[in-house]
Amino acid sequence: MSGTLYAIGTGPGAADLITVRGARILGILDILYAPAGRKGGDSLSLGIVSEYLSHRVEIKSRHFPMSLNEAEKNAAWDTVAEEMAADAASGKRVGFITLGDAMLYSTWVFLLARLQHRVAIEIIPGVTSFACIAARAQVPLAMENQSLAVMACTDNDEALEQALLTHDCVVLMKVYGRFARIQALLRRLDLLDHALLMADASLPQEQCFRALGDMAVDRVLPYFSTVLVNKRWPAQSA
Amino acid sequence: MSGTLYAIGTGPGAADLITVRGARILGILDILYAPAGRKGGDSLSLGIVSEYLSHRVEIKSRHFPMSLNEAEKNAAWDTVAEEMAADAASGKRVGFITLGDAMLYSTWVFLLARLQHRVAIEIIPGVTSFACIAARAQVPLAMENQSLAVMACTDNDEALEQALLTHDCVVLMKVYGRFARIQALLRRLDLLDHALLMADASLPQEQCFRALGDMAVDRVLPYFSTVLVNKRWPAQSA
Repeated sequence: MSGTLYAIGTGPGAADLITVRGARILGILDILYAPAGRKGGDSLSLGIVSEYLSHRVEIKSRHFPMSLNEAEKNAAWDTVAEEMAADAASGKRVGFITLGDAMLYSTWVFLLARLQHRVAIEIIPGVTSFACIAARAQVPLAMENQSLAVMACTDNDEALEQALLTHDCVVLMKVYGRFARIQALLRRLDLLDHALLMADASLPQEQCFRALGDMAVDRVLPYFSTVLVNKRWPAQSA
Repeated sequence: MSGTLYAIGTGPGAADLITVRGARILGILDILYAPAGRKGGDSLSLGIVSEYLSHRVEIKSRHFPMSLNEAEKNAAWDTVAEEMAADAASGKRVGFITLGDAMLYSTWVFLLARLQHRVAIEIIPGVTSFACIAARAQVPLAMENQSLAVMACTDNDEALEQALLTHDCVVLMKVYGRFARIQALLRRLDLLDHALLMADASLPQEQCFRALGDMAVDRVLPYFSTVLVNKRWPAQSA
């Protein structure tokens, strides 16, 4: 008897932006692994899914360190992967939840790399934060022959600049703590009129800023802040 | 009295990969506009949503020409936009459905451009085809500092090559009718071992090809075919 491991993208934040399939699978789980320890992220993902869980599910909150110490991170992922494999091997329906989509900038991929050929795995895709931001701001991502680049602001300035010069639309993820750098880059490339910043998209405290040039460089932003640039669509007019 | 226009991303194809919110809004619509006339696309989007519609909804299938004649396309969009505006102005809850996400390579954006400041609009994001493909193929999109480019194969070879050289992960949309060109490009860049092609992801007839170098150049592929390249993850091993 062998169970299945389900990795479920919860979508960007609002509970009803999960997929119908994701909601249904949450309701049949025996065990749910939930990430804890990311700033603001632990309670958020569990909060999104709580209404869909059965009353008999066992919740296992597990800490995934964000440190730069690779050995520490690898040890944490190894431990959780082994736990999950053992639970699945005992015939349990095991879930893991991840904000947004499961395959984009997600801790899940480190678990997948450890479990891919050992356990039956089903991955349920989710709505990405940037799709939600485009919808909420009413600014499109890419059309016709246009292209979209999705970048992490942890990448170097050269890569971000190259993407902004090359692509019609650019999503800058992980802006938190890096806004001054991004603002300067957008100003230098004369893209401030085509950029917007959204924080906590789809949540009650959602904020959208369209005049990024006017924002103080030391402005403290929420953890989930993303910049969307569309050179073919003036962000200010929306 | 004024109604609302809802643009709903249906997700990649399986009916239960729509969001919970999208499914709920479909159930309260008075009128649903559905695109018709795209190869394989008309019945598909309407098929996805049919189980969520109320019995009293009025379905208005409208043709959106794919021709290269801009005047013809503009006239078609103008006509549908005016119809939608009139329906919303009469207090109706009006829906428009679009495969995948509503803001990425979607006809919806042409309607949005015409209606944005005239009608109350709510856009419901959806799971993109490429998030679904990554999930089904168990190949990630981007992690940590990595970047993702989403390209249309209607773009020129130079742009596609630049994206493949620059980004860790590249999604090539609109492969239909252009496979020979993409295969040659991937071979020249020595990326065949990191590429896969998926057609009709999440549908019963889903197909996944991982040995793209072995496929006949004149192979006839389904209309919804997408190539996923991840240079940091060998597609063949998944």
